[in-house]
This record gives sequence, structure tokens and C-alpha cells, in this order.
Amino acid sequence: MAMYKLVMIRHGQSAWNLENRFSGWADVDLSEQGVAEAREAGRLLKEAGFTFDLAHTSYLKRAVRTLWHVQDAMDLMWIPVVTDWRLNERHYGALTGLNKAETAAKYGDDQVKIWRRSYDTPPPALKPGEMSFADDARYAGIADVPLTECLKDTVARVLPYWHDVLAPAIKAGRSVLMAAHGNSMRALVKYFDGISDDDIAELNIPNGIPLVYEFDAELKPVKHYYLGDAAEIEAKMAAVANQGKAKA
Amino acid sequence: MAMYKLVMIRHGQSAWNLENRFSGWADVDLSEQGVAEAREAGRLLKEAGFTFDLAHTSYLKRAVRTLWHVQDAMDLMWIPVVTDWRLNERHYGALTGLNKAETAAKYGDDQVKIWRRSYDTPPPALKPGEMSFADDARYAGIADVPLTECLKDTVARVLPYWHDVLAPAIKAGRSVLMAAHGNSMRALVKYFDGISDDDIAELNIPNGIPLVYEFDAELKPVKHYYLGDAAEIEAKMAAVANQGKAKA
Repeated sequence: MAMYKLVMIRHGQSAWNLENRFSGWADVDLSEQGVAEAREAGRLLKEAGFTFDLAHTSYLKRAVRTLWHVQDAMDLMWIPVVTDWRLNERHYGALTGLNKAETAAKYGDDQVKIWRRSYDTPPPALKPGEMSFADDARYAGIADVPLTECLKDTVARVLPYWHDVLAPAIKAGRSVLMAAHGNSMRALVKYFDGISDDDIAELNIPNGIPLVYEFDAELKPVKHYYLGDAAEIEAKMAAVANQGKAKA
Repeated sequence: MAMYKLVMIRHGQSAWNLENRFSGWADVDLSEQGVAEAREAGRLLKEAGFTFDLAHTSYLKRAVRTLWHVQDAMDLMWIPVVTDWRLNERHYGALTGLNKAETAAKYGDDQVKIWRRSYDTPPPALKPGEMSFADDARYAGIADVPLTECLKDTVARVLPYWHDVLAPAIKAGRSVLMAAHGNSMRALVKYFDGISDDDIAELNIPNGIPLVYEFDAELKPVKHYYLGDAAEIEAKMAAVANQGKAKA
């Protein structure tokens, strides 16, 4: 029987989603469409009777702004917002900022698919100090800031956040909303549903659609679903899957 | 010697500031001017080299939205936001929602001045259940939700928040920004500067202007100042002082 819930939302479309560029830790803002998606997600959640008393998000403004629009639309601006780099998008290393289609034209669809979706092959690393897009102060207190990540690396920092922070809050009866990123959410979903290292490659999380997980008393997932129009959600998942293609 | 700082900001102009109505715990949003004030405050703080790693605000959206605009303008959307009802505006009881000039015309300037500025005379209380403007869920977990408050009552809930939450964070080296309200800030300023119960009546906090307090190693205030144009700040303080007059 479902005892607990977690609602997750991948940020709405960002300026670089729109330009088909690898974002990673670059602090890209929402596009106009992304803002509209976030507001619509808030409206859907409110309409469906959801409420929250605590929000968690990443250090990246596309997730924070998505959360703010959801809070605003739900009249939940008063809830506290916990932020943590461990909910950040996967760090895309030297690919950060590159256009995905151009990268695919240069290296081939297969290489890009490996970098995007292989579980344990990280893209080429940035050199230390090269992460000019990141606000240093934000990451100053963190030991071993990554310079690139494969999904396995992302899992290795997201799961401790689940076990140490999110799960205890949920078990304590808090209603938690998490606004995050494609790969920090794929990391959690892989764990929740026991998806294999191979199969996770084909899992795509649509932008701006609330994803509801229901758990039993031991926080074992019993059910999950997206909130919203099924056809629109399918179309958005396909769009994410096609982002790495040269002619996307 | 100044060792620590706290930056406080009263929310920008709200829709009810504009209409000269008593807001208190009513969850009134910012006016357009209030949004502009909040953004300008963020710009000023950034220009002056301030940065923050933690924000505290109330349960009321005019303070939260002011904070969000400051965070956005300072590129600090990544910092955590702690919210607490103890930073709320003074609860205005049965005056909540009334036009200040109409109330003054009916009861006289002197009675309104007493309700607005006397240290220990609260306005008439709401009856339990009458606080229809407040989202019940927000205050559900709080023992003894007030039904009216004088400034003394506000002091009695703001000071424990200072001693138990804000002061320890500041002493631990956090750079704290607090977005709050005229009377939750007057409560703190009264304590910081040892202002008498009588003299606090004449202290007016302008909307949307950062107020910087510097403290010594024991958190004794050594200096405070508003950030921005002195003439504009004077004019705003005078505007607050005149809000209770019949012909304001």
C-alpha cells in the first residue's frame, strides 16, 4: 500500500535545450516555453490536489526557476527550499556548451550516444580551472568537484542524497517536491525501479512534467506516473531521445 | 571591529501598500513598483560586492517574491531559502484588509497611530476561524497562532528566531540575507539598538531598501546603514510614517 510520495520534476525547456547544446553544469536559464511548462506543471499539481511542505532542488537556475514557478502557481511560495549540487545535472565535461548536432556530425551519432547514454563512459574531462561557466563560490566548499561525469558518477552522488536527506524527510512525513535534471532524475529512477545499466540508456525524462512516485512503508516504490496529457508526454520523451541525432 | 553582518530587506511595495490597507498576515503580492524595487535592491547589493549563502524569509509572498528577485538579480538563485512564520509581518487582527485612511477617518488619526505604533496595544482580535485570508495549512503546525498582535507580541516571536536560528548561523560564518516586513524588522532593530518602547514608534523602515547591520565578535551591533540613495530612502521612510494619516 502506498504510504509515501515523492514528486519530481525535470526543469522546463532551457535556452540550451532549445539550441540543442550540452548544458551539464552550465547555468543556463529557462526559455519562454520552459517558463510556460513550469507554470502548467504547477497548475496540474494543484488541480490534482497535491501539496508540499518542503522543496529540494539543484544549484542550477533552470531547476530553481522551474521550482519557483511551480510554487507560485500552487500558492506554495512559503515552503522552504533546500538546494544541493548533488541534484545538479550530470557534468558534461569538455562537451559542455557544444551543440549536440554539431558534435554528432563531427564524432558520429554513435560516439555522442555513448557519451550521452553509456552508463560508465564519461565525456572528455575539463581541466581544473576550465569550468569558467560555473560560479566558483557555489562549489567552493565541495571536495572533489567533478570535471566530467558518466551516469554512474551521477548515481554515486545522487543516491547518498536520497538516503541521507530525501528519504528521511519523506519518512518523517514531509511532502517533498524535487525540481532537478534529466540525469539526476534518471539516477533516482534507475535505483527506484532496479533498471539495468544497459536499459537505463533508453529511459528519457520529459521536461516540465511532474513525475509521481508512490512508496510503501519501507520506501519501496509501488507505483509511478507522469501527471498530464499522455500524448504530449510521449512526444516530449521522444524529443529528448532524438536530441543527440545529427539532424535533430 | 565588525566581524559579522546581517543584511535585511523589507519587501517592496505591495498591492495593499499601494491601496493603503492594513496587510498583516494577508498574503498580498508585490505591486509592479515593488518588483522593480526588489530588483534594484539586488542590483545595488551585487554592485556593492555583497554575496550570501543562506536566505531567511517569512511565510508571506511579498517577502518571498522580494527575496526571489534579489536572488535573481544577484545570480544567487542557488542559495537555500529558510522560511518561518516568526518573520511574518505583525498580525493586524480585525484591522487586516481595512484601508488605513478610512480607518483613520472613522476612529481618528490618534487611535490608528496607537494601533499602528503603540508598543503594547494590539488592534481588536480576529475570532478563531475568521482568518480567512491565511492558508490554514501554512499555520496548521503552529501552537497559539495569534489573532492580533501589538509590536511587543511581534518582538516576543522574532527575538527567539534571532537567538535560536539567525545568530547561530551568522556566528557559524554564514552570509545571511533576510527578507521580511516592517514590523518583524522593527522588532530586530529595537533589540539591536536598544530602542525604548516609546521611541520605536517613530522608527520607519522603507520598502525595498537593503539594511546592513555589522556586528562585533559577540554579535553586538557596531554599525548599520541603508544601501542606496539617501534622499530616496528619506522620502520612503516619510511615506511609511504618513500611511496612517486620513489624507495620506
